[in-house]
Amino acid sequence: MALASDARSVGLVTPQTAHFDEPLTLACGRVLPTYELIYETYGKLNAAKDNAILVCHALSGHHHAAGRHSVDDRKAGWWDECIGPGKPIDTERFFVVSLNNLGGCHGSTGPASTNPATGQPWGPEFPPLRVRDWVHSQARLADALGIDCWAAVIGGSLGGMQAMRWALLYPRRLRHCIVIAAAMKLSAQNLAFNEVARQAIQSDPDFEDGHYLHAGKVPARGLALARMVGHITYLSDDAMASKFGRELRSGSLDIGGDEPVEFQVQSYLRYQGSRFSDSFDANTYILMTQALDYFDLAREYGDDPVAAFEAACCRFLVLSFSTDWRFPPARSREIVDALIAARREVSYAEIEANEGHDAFLMPIPRYLALFRAYLQQVAVS
Amino acid sequence: MALASDARSVGLVTPQTAHFDEPLTLACGRVLPTYELIYETYGKLNAAKDNAILVCHALSGHHHAAGRHSVDDRKAGWWDECIGPGKPIDTERFFVVSLNNLGGCHGSTGPASTNPATGQPWGPEFPPLRVRDWVHSQARLADALGIDCWAAVIGGSLGGMQAMRWALLYPRRLRHCIVIAAAMKLSAQNLAFNEVARQAIQSDPDFEDGHYLHAGKVPARGLALARMVGHITYLSDDAMASKFGRELRSGSLDIGGDEPVEFQVQSYLRYQGSRFSDSFDANTYILMTQALDYFDLAREYGDDPVAAFEAACCRFLVLSFSTDWRFPPARSREIVDALIAARREVSYAEIEANEGHDAFLMPIPRYLALFRAYLQQVAVS
Repeated sequence: MALASDARSVGLVTPQTAHFDEPLTLACGRVLPTYELIYETYGKLNAAKDNAILVCHALSGHHHAAGRHSVDDRKAGWWDECIGPGKPIDTERFFVVSLNNLGGCHGSTGPASTNPATGQPWGPEFPPLRVRDWVHSQARLADALGIDCWAAVIGGSLGGMQAMRWALLYPRRLRHCIVIAAAMKLSAQNLAFNEVARQAIQSDPDFEDGHYLHAGKVPARGLALARMVGHITYLSDDAMASKFGRELRSGSLDIGGDEPVEFQVQSYLRYQGSRFSDSFDANTYILMTQALDYFDLAREYGDDPVAAFEAACCRFLVLSFSTDWRFPPARSREIVDALIAARREVSYAEIEANEGHDAFLMPIPRYLALFRAYLQQVAVS
Repeated sequence: MALASDARSVGLVTPQTAHFDEPLTLACGRVLPTYELIYETYGKLNAAKDNAILVCHALSGHHHAAGRHSVDDRKAGWWDECIGPGKPIDTERFFVVSLNNLGGCHGSTGPASTNPATGQPWGPEFPPLRVRDWVHSQARLADALGIDCWAAVIGGSLGGMQAMRWALLYPRRLRHCIVIAAAMKLSAQNLAFNEVARQAIQSDPDFEDGHYLHAGKVPARGLALARMVGHITYLSDDAMASKFGRELRSGSLDIGGDEPVEFQVQSYLRYQGSRFSDSFDANTYILMTQALDYFDLAREYGDDPVAAFEAACCRFLVLSFSTDWRFPPARSREIVDALIAARREVSYAEIEANEGHDAFLMPIPRYLALFRAYLQQVAVS
């Protein structure tokens, strides 16, 4: 149902909710008795059910990856550049599933949901999650949709970590694994930025030790700061320079003048921060950054990435971006080296792009062309 | 008066305070009627008074650059690696002056000082400062010490910006200008990090719009966050990796376990943040980051760095460090290119160093050797 105005859009989409009654045992040992996952689908599942693609979202993402929820919607889903008729993830061939992860705050069960045991929001009592918990819950969703084996599991950033974990945990349930702008584990610098983000949230007096919903508050200042820090790491120095430079929003840089002037980049960051704090749950942000911190693909394989990838049997596409300093190309090359040493089939490309980590969301011609070409040769009935 | 235990130390030092009664007109147009500058000196001023070196400090620095204040002092001054007998800034040849800048919080007049007009702390009413204000106040200090012309003005980071401004504002009052790990202006990414730091401070409820001293409070959480953000940018990704990796301070990264584990880098950052918030004034931090933001060496020279440096007549040494991503080598090369185009004498070296921006404080052999060799050929009577 494409909008008349854009034949390359998946058009209007309506999220659906899957309810799960079978308890899910989490990596932390706790059990989630019931939970819901909100998701969207684009394209049609074929009779052989071999054309399904799972899209895994990144830190602050959600299920709404493509199309619009209403004709008035000003913005399309977060990966609309890559999902649609004729786009790299071509909805004329593939049936695409995009969900909000467990622990999220966009409709799936998470810290802002009601804890059935207390009738109150879970808040900080929501169990900590690991990337593998998301993978297991996504496998349940696949079961519910009648999908035995994904044509591909695809993700950028934290989504790429889920895709890799899928390849190790359910090797027979995916044929292709596409890992974009990701890493096998965080660097100390990555950990440090996440720590600052959490500290910003937790030191906001309105955080109330995580019980802000109960107190009728929102740690908006802390969330905004966390987002500002994150946002800087998503953009390259070059991208910021070309986007903002030292342009002023107001005032003058003349020597005199007692009033502080404002650079464009300052007001942009403040806007991004405040918009985020209006829409994101603080406990979810903490939970997701901790899942990122603790992700370590090869840990239980004797810290040997080659041994880890020997558990996989799908084919891999790995993509990185030249100016990404959050997960730089060197991190992707480590993945590729381990895959080759494990004798797995892998294609790799490092895309020249000015946009830093955010490049994976952008319509960069070589990126889209490679992504499309790879998926075109994925067989479907 | 070297300590017996370290013949290469300047030994015990005692800060001195210079009081200035002649009003200082600031770049913002406001006038500071009186002010004090706290400073230390190392070595002896010779009879010709041509062996004096001015050391300019960086964002969170102060006057205590070398030696110890008492025999019990556990830490020496912040640039003790570079200042002392036989060290690059050799106190057997040079008379070194190191001050706390105006607006600082270590003894010079600043926002935490008493405003004579009100009898209360200046707080946020302290006038905003520009790098040129520091240079003018440092020139007054030179007058008070009887120094007509510095053998060299030296600084790293924000200190390097002061050294460059000296060369343009007082071309006849310095013979050498040493600019280490600096830039002619901040990039958008630099501005962004400073904005996050200020937002962290200003959104702390204990900031009280800058009147925290009057309210008997300290915006400790905000200051700690600001320092954490800054600290990440001072270290390279590599330096963090080799210093911390993903080492745990406590707990275990086992899949199970409900308690959050703590990485070394997290506790390190928290420690740095909390130590800083115990010792630094929030209004000073805001003032200094704004001076950094607004610094733009060539702005009043038609945005032409070549025209700017044509105002200088001293010789220059420019040094940068390979993994410095706050002020990367490319920023130093812009300085060098402009100096060459302006037909000024300049030596440049890019030092291979793993330590990021902090490298300028570290005893890196090639750095110390070059720094020493350059200063050895600076003539003194």
